[in-house]
Amino acid sequence: MNETTITAQPDTPFIEVVREFDAPRERVFRAWTDPVLVPQWLGPRGMTMKLFEFDATPGGSYHYIHADERGEYGFRGVFHNVVPDELIIQTFEYEGAPNQVSLETLRFEDLGGGRTRVHGRTVYTTVENRDAMVASGMEHGVRDSMERLDEVLAR
Amino acid sequence: MNETTITAQPDTPFIEVVREFDAPRERVFRAWTDPVLVPQWLGPRGMTMKLFEFDATPGGSYHYIHADERGEYGFRGVFHNVVPDELIIQTFEYEGAPNQVSLETLRFEDLGGGRTRVHGRTVYTTVENRDAMVASGMEHGVRDSMERLDEVLAR
Repeated sequence: MNETTITAQPDTPFIEVVREFDAPRERVFRAWTDPVLVPQWLGPRGMTMKLFEFDATPGGSYHYIHADERGEYGFRGVFHNVVPDELIIQTFEYEGAPNQVSLETLRFEDLGGGRTRVHGRTVYTTVENRDAMVASGMEHGVRDSMERLDEVLAR
Repeated sequence: MNETTITAQPDTPFIEVVREFDAPRERVFRAWTDPVLVPQWLGPRGMTMKLFEFDATPGGSYHYIHADERGEYGFRGVFHNVVPDELIIQTFEYEGAPNQVSLETLRFEDLGGGRTRVHGRTVYTTVENRDAMVASGMEHGVRDSMERLDEVLAR
């Protein structure tokens, strides 16, 4: 099992996530950007995901909902830049906390031998918003997502 | 003369800019979002501005160049959200430092009596990128821009 490393240093507005995958970089990147594949892994287990918009190109937008028996949770953002197989820079907003927006940079590193490392760095507008995101249990959602992505890549 | 307050606390990735204007909020907001007005004030004095794209709507993009006799400086980004007269949330990238992207939140506050306060808060992906932006002389560009905007609003 590949480990998911999540780092949130105190008194900073950053969250870093590093994860390796036993799959070539172009397949990992595709899973992150293909609107058919994304709903198969993004989000905690037990949630269904509905994509209303997902255009992973420079200037494109996304809007989706995670739903379970307790309710629906909407998320939206724009893609500042997308470089195939290498880089995604996007904004992120949970609709339950309107206009508290973060900026995420994802880099896809080819490790050779059909393996890939993804570095994610998210910066929040305030340290308080970052702390609230950590307190919300995002760590659980990220770990679930990464394991579900392993399963998608193994198919 | 209204003062421009620029705050960049050490060891943080934030820059805050606060500025008041002797003009109603809807006029200030319009100057910030109208592609005809923006080139009349945005940027340091002595630069000309060419807008290639400027769509200040949610999901819209912008791309412009500042030019003087020494060269051309390109900037691009996307609008995450735009609420008329109230709020702009946008990404920002100087093309000379590719993929070093920042996220800016601008709030327009109606002070009454035909006066407006604009609060800008920008967060950079790293403290180093924020420090580099401060060292680049952005303060000079911001102060010039705010004074030029006063002139546009006085017309």
